Amino acid sequence: MSYLEELGANAKKAEKTMRGISSAQKDNALEEIAKALEENQALIISENEKDLENAVKKEMSKAMQDRLKLDEKRIKGMADSVRKLISLPDPVGRVLGGHELPNGLKIVKKSVPLGVVGIIFESRPNVTVDAAAICLKSGNVSVLRGGSDAINSNKCLVEIMRNAVKKAGLDENAVSLVTDTSRETAGEFMKLNRYIDVLIPRGGGGLIHTVVNNATIPVIQTGEGNCSVYVDSSADIEKAVNIVDNGKTQRPSVCNAIENLIVHRDIAEQFLKALNEKWQGRVKILGDEAAAKYIKVDGIAASEDYATEFLDYTIAVKTVESTDEAIDFINAYGTKHSECIVTESLANAEKFQREVDAAAVYVNASTRFTDGGEFGMGAEIGISTQKLHARGPMGLEEMTTYKYLINGNGQIRG
Amino acid sequence: MSYLEELGANAKKAEKTMRGISSAQKDNALEEIAKALEENQALIISENEKDLENAVKKEMSKAMQDRLKLDEKRIKGMADSVRKLISLPDPVGRVLGGHELPNGLKIVKKSVPLGVVGIIFESRPNVTVDAAAICLKSGNVSVLRGGSDAINSNKCLVEIMRNAVKKAGLDENAVSLVTDTSRETAGEFMKLNRYIDVLIPRGGGGLIHTVVNNATIPVIQTGEGNCSVYVDSSADIEKAVNIVDNGKTQRPSVCNAIENLIVHRDIAEQFLKALNEKWQGRVKILGDEAAAKYIKVDGIAASEDYATEFLDYTIAVKTVESTDEAIDFINAYGTKHSECIVTESLANAEKFQREVDAAAVYVNASTRFTDGGEFGMGAEIGISTQKLHARGPMGLEEMTTYKYLINGNGQIRG
Repeated sequence: MSYLEELGANAKKAEKTMRGISSAQKDNALEEIAKALEENQALIISENEKDLENAVKKEMSKAMQDRLKLDEKRIKGMADSVRKLISLPDPVGRVLGGHELPNGLKIVKKSVPLGVVGIIFESRPNVTVDAAAICLKSGNVSVLRGGSDAINSNKCLVEIMRNAVKKAGLDENAVSLVTDTSRETAGEFMKLNRYIDVLIPRGGGGLIHTVVNNATIPVIQTGEGNCSVYVDSSADIEKAVNIVDNGKTQRPSVCNAIENLIVHRDIAEQFLKALNEKWQGRVKILGDEAAAKYIKVDGIAASEDYATEFLDYTIAVKTVESTDEAIDFINAYGTKHSECIVTESLANAEKFQREVDAAAVYVNASTRFTDGGEFGMGAEIGISTQKLHARGPMGLEEMTTYKYLINGNGQIRG
Repeated sequence: MSYLEELGANAKKAEKTMRGISSAQKDNALEEIAKALEENQALIISENEKDLENAVKKEMSKAMQDRLKLDEKRIKGMADSVRKLISLPDPVGRVLGGHELPNGLKIVKKSVPLGVVGIIFESRPNVTVDAAAICLKSGNVSVLRGGSDAINSNKCLVEIMRNAVKKAGLDENAVSLVTDTSRETAGEFMKLNRYIDVLIPRGGGGLIHTVVNNATIPVIQTGEGNCSVYVDSSADIEKAVNIVDNGKTQRPSVCNAIENLIVHRDIAEQFLKALNEKWQGRVKILGDEAAAKYIKVDGIAASEDYATEFLDYTIAVKTVESTDEAIDFINAYGTKHSECIVTESLANAEKFQREVDAAAVYVNASTRFTDGGEFGMGAEIGISTQKLHARGPMGLEEMTTYKYLINGNGQIRG
């Protein structure tokens, strides 16, 4: 049995025990995790420092080093997130439907955990705790595979969680870490169908595409957001400027930030001049020829620019002749995440919401609202950009599947 | 642009038009399809005869030839199935939830079609019409890829459907067929992520595994059913005999038929003797040593036998010491389809339903009830054996996803 197979088999064994536990047992384990994180603050920070030292040696960018860093405040934040889950309703055991057949057979559709969930992510170690805790609350076993940059932090965090889970009387294998971060092991991990039910990659487009192209386990794609705002000819200029500004500059590094700005030619001059005044060069602009007439551009936008998730103070601007052209542009370049129209036309608003193929389609509001918290989910494992299972923000309910329970007294089919 | 890319691009174009059509338009197109099938009966039969002639040349088994054959009655049956869909509610446009944020932003979660659905299936040409019609009713575009054995029948049926769809005023590319049935094209088809949203293989385990292992498009696995009945020590013998007999012999070729029989040792003698009397050698039995003491076996069961979907009058018998052992056996060998316990013990019934990991878990009733019709869905595209998206019978609602529509008046995130 290989290293990964043993890990998988242990996770699968733990899964069976998770099917029988109560909400109180899960919440108790979450409280133990939160406490243990707080109590082991010094240890976590010292292990994290090893990763930070390696990061300096590898000349990792300051921004990436910052994402990697754990301090008292961040550890407190992780513990708080875990405790917040305790207050949320248990997503398992909900009766989703049911009926009785004429022959007396009773059918009940009930929510159950997905099973063993594999999470593949990059360097932020807070994902480690967050993902494991959401899985635990939803009755799922998690097998975490973080990046090598955070390996010391992750080992320490997972060990702390496993001990806490055990202390709470659950199988410690309800949470585990793939400590071998080699590329070969990652490849094998994605094909572990026998033990892992679902794979959720969290990270940039490169990671997600690697998983989609190599995994044989069913995948939920999350978090790739090449989002656009379309400013229609009937748009209110002030709303449009605010929505575009908020989408681009409030937090450019996240997936619901906007990357493309589409402007109807009839309003391009008025709107782009207003935007130019607002931004005053704070945002790098790549535009087509028509846009360049009204706003200072840093270059002409190529097709690849429209397909790029900049995650930075950069935007690509495209001018169009119609709502149809804007919709076709979005359906061609978007990642099915969040898209917005700014318009005062009811017909164009309805057309846009009907024909744009994305998880969240906005009229006159910032795409930055696509978020588990804003959508009332309380917690979020990621934002799905695919159509199977869950679309948009994935909270606890989206981490469950269902099972039909059928009870009879000897019924057979005629 | 390759042949498949062109097909895919046309399907994607048709998808956009499908987002705007009404229930009446879809039902009208279904009626046109039903009428056209009836009117073109002679043509369908003559094209089907070409496939039947080839089947004889290839020395296809009689059973397979029968599955391939279309006659007046079967064509009428296809038309009736299409008309039945007209009477079912439209699964698109249902409001699944929603709320208003304190800032006035309105969020509505609404059901929408999956998009472009690829269906890969084997030789039964009635699947061609059935799958296309279910896709149409649920607002999806279908790209069908049937087996080479039925190519003439499929070409004829799809041409009839495309003309009918066009006559009803829809884009004829709402239904299309991959006429190149080569293995290379099949491989390319499974990676057409740009144009196809979901892939549904319908057929035997071999086909399904090929798709799961090669597709990069999200897959819904359907129809592989290695189902078991577990006869607990407290079982009512008469119920147990009837349920096992019904599961194995009422229609052995379907996925919800049973393949394994698990018997508690304490009841093995009494139960297996009763079953022996019922079957009188009509079913081929592979059993373990303990079972062989009480029922006439045709051989000792090996591990591979327990993993085999016989789809025939053959069953593998395993004796166990406990409900736990039965559950572990099922979770190891089953395909997560339908599993049954026959018991008079409430504790064992509950344990079994909780810990068995399958789409449908029965107490004291035949697994043959796992079916879209019995589950009240009206129509069924297949029975999902995976956990993502839909589990168990997939009806019209399961052929949809959802989209969040968010309406504001200039809200931005603070």
